Amino acid sequence: MPDTLIKVDLSQSPYENDTIHNRWHPDIPMVATVRPGQDFIIECYDWTGGFIKNNDSAADVRDIDLSIVHFLSGPVGVEGAEPGDLLVVDFLDIGAFPSNAWGFNGFFSKQNGGGFLTDQFPQAQKSIWDFHGLFTTSRHVPGVRFAGLIHPGLIGCLPSHSLLETWNARETALIGTNPTRVPPLANPPFAPTAHLGRLRGEARDAAAATGARTVPPREHGGNCDIKDLSRGARVYFPVYVPGAGLSVGDLHFSQGDGEITFCGAIEMPGWIHLKVELIKDGMAKYGIRNPIFRPSPIKPEYRDYLIFEGISVDESGAQHYLDVTVAYRQACLNAIEYISKFGYTRAQAYAILGVAPVQGHVSGVVDIPNACATLWLPTEIFDFDIRPGAAGPIAGVQPGTDIPIAPDA
Amino acid sequence: MPDTLIKVDLSQSPYENDTIHNRWHPDIPMVATVRPGQDFIIECYDWTGGFIKNNDSAADVRDIDLSIVHFLSGPVGVEGAEPGDLLVVDFLDIGAFPSNAWGFNGFFSKQNGGGFLTDQFPQAQKSIWDFHGLFTTSRHVPGVRFAGLIHPGLIGCLPSHSLLETWNARETALIGTNPTRVPPLANPPFAPTAHLGRLRGEARDAAAATGARTVPPREHGGNCDIKDLSRGARVYFPVYVPGAGLSVGDLHFSQGDGEITFCGAIEMPGWIHLKVELIKDGMAKYGIRNPIFRPSPIKPEYRDYLIFEGISVDESGAQHYLDVTVAYRQACLNAIEYISKFGYTRAQAYAILGVAPVQGHVSGVVDIPNACATLWLPTEIFDFDIRPGAAGPIAGVQPGTDIPIAPDA
Amino acid sequence: MPDTLIKVDLSQSPYENDTIHNRWHPDIPMVATVRPGQDFIIECYDWTGGFIKNNDSAADVRDIDLSIVHFLSGPVGVEGAEPGDLLVVDFLDIGAFPSNAWGFNGFFSKQNGGGFLTDQFPQAQKSIWDFHGLFTTSRHVPGVRFAGLIHPGLIGCLPSHSLLETWNARETALIGTNPTRVPPLANPPFAPTAHLGRLRGEARDAAAATGARTVPPREHGGNCDIKDLSRGARVYFPVYVPGAGLSVGDLHFSQGDGEITFCGAIEMPGWIHLKVELIKDGMAKYGIRNPIFRPSPIKPEYRDYLIFEGISVDESGAQHYLDVTVAYRQACLNAIEYISKFGYTRAQAYAILGVAPVQGHVSGVVDIPNACATLWLPTEIFDFDIRPGAAGPIAGVQPGTDIPIAPDA
Amino acid sequence: MPDTLIKVDLSQSPYENDTIHNRWHPDIPMVATVRPGQDFIIECYDWTGGFIKNNDSAADVRDIDLSIVHFLSGPVGVEGAEPGDLLVVDFLDIGAFPSNAWGFNGFFSKQNGGGFLTDQFPQAQKSIWDFHGLFTTSRHVPGVRFAGLIHPGLIGCLPSHSLLETWNARETALIGTNPTRVPPLANPPFAPTAHLGRLRGEARDAAAATGARTVPPREHGGNCDIKDLSRGARVYFPVYVPGAGLSVGDLHFSQGDGEITFCGAIEMPGWIHLKVELIKDGMAKYGIRNPIFRPSPIKPEYRDYLIFEGISVDESGAQHYLDVTVAYRQACLNAIEYISKFGYTRAQAYAILGVAPVQGHVSGVVDIPNACATLWLPTEIFDFDIRPGAAGPIAGVQPGTDIPIAPDA
Repeated sequence: MPDTLIKVDLSQSPYENDTIHNRWHPDIPMVATVRPGQDFIIECYDWTGGFIKNNDSAADVRDIDLSIVHFLSGPVGVEGAEPGDLLVVDFLDIGAFPSNAWGFNGFFSKQNGGGFLTDQFPQAQKSIWDFHGLFTTSRHVPGVRFAGLIHPGLIGCLPSHSLLETWNARETALIGTNPTRVPPLANPPFAPTAHLGRLRGEARDAAAATGARTVPPREHGGNCDIKDLSRGARVYFPVYVPGAGLSVGDLHFSQGDGEITFCGAIEMPGWIHLKVELIKDGMAKYGIRNPIFRPSPIKPEYRDYLIFEGISVDESGAQHYLDVTVAYRQACLNAIEYISKFGYTRAQAYAILGVAPVQGHVSGVVDIPNACATLWLPTEIFDFDIRPGAAGPIAGVQPGTDIPIAPDA
Repeated sequence: MPDTLIKVDLSQSPYENDTIHNRWHPDIPMVATVRPGQDFIIECYDWTGGFIKNNDSAADVRDIDLSIVHFLSGPVGVEGAEPGDLLVVDFLDIGAFPSNAWGFNGFFSKQNGGGFLTDQFPQAQKSIWDFHGLFTTSRHVPGVRFAGLIHPGLIGCLPSHSLLETWNARETALIGTNPTRVPPLANPPFAPTAHLGRLRGEARDAAAATGARTVPPREHGGNCDIKDLSRGARVYFPVYVPGAGLSVGDLHFSQGDGEITFCGAIEMPGWIHLKVELIKDGMAKYGIRNPIFRPSPIKPEYRDYLIFEGISVDESGAQHYLDVTVAYRQACLNAIEYISKFGYTRAQAYAILGVAPVQGHVSGVVDIPNACATLWLPTEIFDFDIRPGAAGPIAGVQPGTDIPIAPDA
Repeated sequence: MPDTLIKVDLSQSPYENDTIHNRWHPDIPMVATVRPGQDFIIECYDWTGGFIKNNDSAADVRDIDLSIVHFLSGPVGVEGAEPGDLLVVDFLDIGAFPSNAWGFNGFFSKQNGGGFLTDQFPQAQKSIWDFHGLFTTSRHVPGVRFAGLIHPGLIGCLPSHSLLETWNARETALIGTNPTRVPPLANPPFAPTAHLGRLRGEARDAAAATGARTVPPREHGGNCDIKDLSRGARVYFPVYVPGAGLSVGDLHFSQGDGEITFCGAIEMPGWIHLKVELIKDGMAKYGIRNPIFRPSPIKPEYRDYLIFEGISVDESGAQHYLDVTVAYRQACLNAIEYISKFGYTRAQAYAILGVAPVQGHVSGVVDIPNACATLWLPTEIFDFDIRPGAAGPIAGVQPGTDIPIAPDA
Repeated sequence: MPDTLIKVDLSQSPYENDTIHNRWHPDIPMVATVRPGQDFIIECYDWTGGFIKNNDSAADVRDIDLSIVHFLSGPVGVEGAEPGDLLVVDFLDIGAFPSNAWGFNGFFSKQNGGGFLTDQFPQAQKSIWDFHGLFTTSRHVPGVRFAGLIHPGLIGCLPSHSLLETWNARETALIGTNPTRVPPLANPPFAPTAHLGRLRGEARDAAAATGARTVPPREHGGNCDIKDLSRGARVYFPVYVPGAGLSVGDLHFSQGDGEITFCGAIEMPGWIHLKVELIKDGMAKYGIRNPIFRPSPIKPEYRDYLIFEGISVDESGAQHYLDVTVAYRQACLNAIEYISKFGYTRAQAYAILGVAPVQGHVSGVVDIPNACATLWLPTEIFDFDIRPGAAGPIAGVQPGTDIPIAPDA
């Protein structure tokens, strides 16, 4: 039985657990060391450290202080790892805690983070998803059931000092272009809520002042929220500091491409079973800037999809130039409109796109001026027939349920 | 045996074939009429009407007048179709002409259209791909062989006058923001090279002056270049004019998500076998703005991929805000860098991403400020092992071949 | 464009075409010669040489003289092939003739060949299947539509004299155990209807007297009727005579595992595009007794199946010892019973199992005394929902159609 | 968190656990009762109750008293279930105990049970397989690694008295045809080692004398050893007694079609998470004699296989009539011969076919006199390239390891 290197107590604040951190900084001390070839287990809080509860109110999603996220487990040192190596990580398995067989999905208020469709869904909303072994259902979204595509939303190695400076410089520059925007363009370092693991004293305070926020994906991977980086996958991470310093968190029971609801997947605490190897000097040998990975041989498979197209003309009719973000937004809105014809509220439809294993494809990016993106909705996740037919849509769910909403105070 | 409603003679100019057109306009006369439930065959030119030749020079790609594209077959009228209906189109089969078992892929010069990576590949280049039954190989790109994911790059129904005006207005507005850009932001109507099928006289001249160019995908579908809109798929098209007016062209033997090389897939002439049905008033019933479709049960399947991540920090290190287009470009560049470690030139690597059935996923669009996109490269298309290993990359192809280039004059 | 080495004229008797033969014998002259690396096309009659017609009577299935089958195209010689080599054959593509876009499935009379369920279906019956591009439907079996898994039922290299003697000896011995059985245990050589291609004179007569019938699969492959040996596959055939002598025929548009109706698949004439290579001395190097193959990357894919179990207790309740044949028969009968609850006749259900891409798995062969076999029925081939539910079966087809039957005279 | 209705203590003999039984009899008392719609967890011994150990000797496989198997957990009663109903069972999840992350595969001595290839492998042999999350490897079989297709080998409802009598009658009759055969044709009731759960007194003794052995699959399912009856599947079981009486055991981490090594899969103790529903009178409504099931949406997927053909001519050259069992044996022997060319012993090759997710297809059963069966070996489970090539086989494993053997005493 492999060692569990990091344990979490869900009844305890993650700030009291010194194997947890919520900023990226090269000075955070390793909390354990492993050998290449070793496998081990790491336990994780959910990304909010337990702030969101299993109830029927979205007040917690509305009120959360997002400067506390994400609570990561680590860093784990790897013997012999040096900058320039590739750290090969096998995701041997990932799971929920049996005593905590549920997760949450939320839309943030536009005043507190927002999301991909924040203009359409500006208020905080939350749905709870129960796990039944491999499957999940929600009391807030009837009529859908699907197998989990379990994955960590966030995993990567510690940045070097130099890389950290690059991150802070470029993100600060972006914020400077519109510093009062709501939601903001990016999140700068923020010391008051920083948790630096076992780092103490002045070093800790210095790291709190400059440690990168965990929100965006960056060169090291980080918060990629890639649904296919799932249990069974093999990932090749760039190494920037001696010992690599692998940290992980933000486990998801399932998520669609894009994680469009932001809080976004079905978020959960749990455990991950990892194995590590090294490819010495692998970054140069293979020309690696960002992590690469190979998918799992064992994951939910679907064959039939309804595929929605979107082009880079926005909701107001304005023309954008080869903008895949706009095109994917239109594909999502088209899917929400369609799903809502079958008895769902638009919020329920949005939640489905956030949590189910929908695919988002960059379909065309050269046919000026319109990018084309597609949203792939697996039809088999529905208990009823959601395909088009001559008779028109037949509602598959009864009205009366919806996703709890918490209007801004 | 179904009727072949439209025939093409590859030795004849498409301008001489009055069942062909290269602009979108509601006044283009139907060239045939079919009943709901009927299946029929349509022959198509390649999108350039035969301008690009099977040789080892890229001069034709450099010199083509892009105002002539795309040569479409149609429009075909459908009895009983009315605005607001959905036209259900089954792609029963698609193929190359046996006498023309090859296709081409090209990069346009930055001076003449460019492409997704035109800053990296500013000169015209061309590769020729030979078809061997279900499979294709190229003398310009050794070491790869894959099954075709045959599809039409361009298909859709005629726009209404009102929809056409919307298109022209919004695209003209975009061009107006930077009218001298090279390559341009969009293509306005252009009468001199317009081909309006059987439209004649003043009506023809009026349509030539205002007919929308065929380059971008739009509400009706059009030049979506969606690789999965492939033979065996079922598509639901919005209908805007009485009789629908379905036109199709720009057949591809294969293409990757994004069609990143622009000329872009493996382009070919050929035939498509279609069947049509109607869902009356389907646009309102199902809330349809853009076509939706269901994928084919029979298409090339891969299980193992190398997946490259990209984030919305560009080549210069500048930070963009949740820009999937930038992120996907980085994923593509990362893949090109990787592939080039195995003996390929960067141009060969770019061509592979353009023509092979790579997937491009919108992986994360909410983690400010970085979008995350992934490029999925199927490892099984290579004759050799392209996966990472401790030994470093082992070249799978011998140096000495490359894709012909034609420098700007 | 590859050469078409063998052509067939469907209006002409195959006996008049000297590139056709219907017995296996090493002395049959090659009708063409190819080089390793060459690709080429071969046209084929349907296995009966055109005896079965596209009509609504099963009289032809009842009355056919089965000693005439199978009409094979070949043999094709391969330069440099020697006994002991492996002939690597790529099935580049396979198709029907556009002018003959239909096929047939039949049950033979128990008096004339029978089939897997001949005790349950002792009379001749026939269904006609129309091809619609990649798909097929039948006027005799409404409510099903599926994509073709096109393959040759019969392909292999000429046997050596020694191998031929082995075949004749062992099959004659089996016949000797019950020489008057109806249907027979095996088919001995039969000169009157033999067709030996270009062999002439005494040699021809000698070969007619001893040439092996084409009915069973044998060491060289032959009439394997393996549905997955489909277009896109790569097969490695043992070579027994200089030049290999590859012959092929009995094309199928689709078939289920077991080809249980005997005449059995959707039988059709058509063409096959092949490419050949050699592995010198490959039989010894790889220890090959029978052909091996790798499946196609492009074939119809299904995800949802209804899976029927069968055990080796027969219809009378008698216990058999680890007999997979009996177990699979029970699984088939179980499936027929189930399908018949949805409005089909039992004959229609039997035809579906014969022609659709059902899987037959050897599930357990060690748990004495019962073998366990499973029949996998893809649910997606039906236009309606055929899965079990609390409400009981809801008929998906209207009564009134059936498969034509021709009682024994 | 669902209730764990049945618990096992691996340090305790299963004979001391009264929620376990090893015979089928309608009088065995229910050990728990559940409602339709309820989900629950059941723990299971391995099928031998812990007799086989994690070591490098096959003595335990040689010496086991097979009359003790299989130790099943149950029966579980379902409220409202009546004879004639279908019990719908969802396999929500299945797993090993974390403290027992290994399993075993064995070949029985021909003197003690034998196996599918007992003539070729007449001695007891054993391999140990370690679990690494979703994957398994063996110190006795290097060079292979694959994801588990976890499933119960044995599950079903209690037979009625009448059905039990049928079983005993037909199996006794078979034994009577050759009562001294080694291994035997079937196993009659055997009281000395019977374990009847909570049944006591005279009723217990009567049931011990007549309770059916658990070895074969029968009408109720039972020891089907169907690898695809895996976690995520939905199964429809016939109900024969009031309350149904569902029992389960013989968990497998993985297995190939046929379970050809008999002890057979990777055998393990563990837990299964189930959910039950009822279809009232479902047996008649759907014409069900044996269980039917639908496969899991989440299981290991492979695309590339090496497929070995076998025909019903046995190892001695004797001709059998349409005997799939013989044909599948030849396909297995062909695969073993092939695999052994890559550095494996024949015993290692046999073990691979037993434990890896190989497919066994009934390919042709009508082409007299030869049945044709195929064995599908996924190439991706090997660490090296096992496909044929012009250079001949290149050993992928070093000589020196083998599967422990224990010669008959």
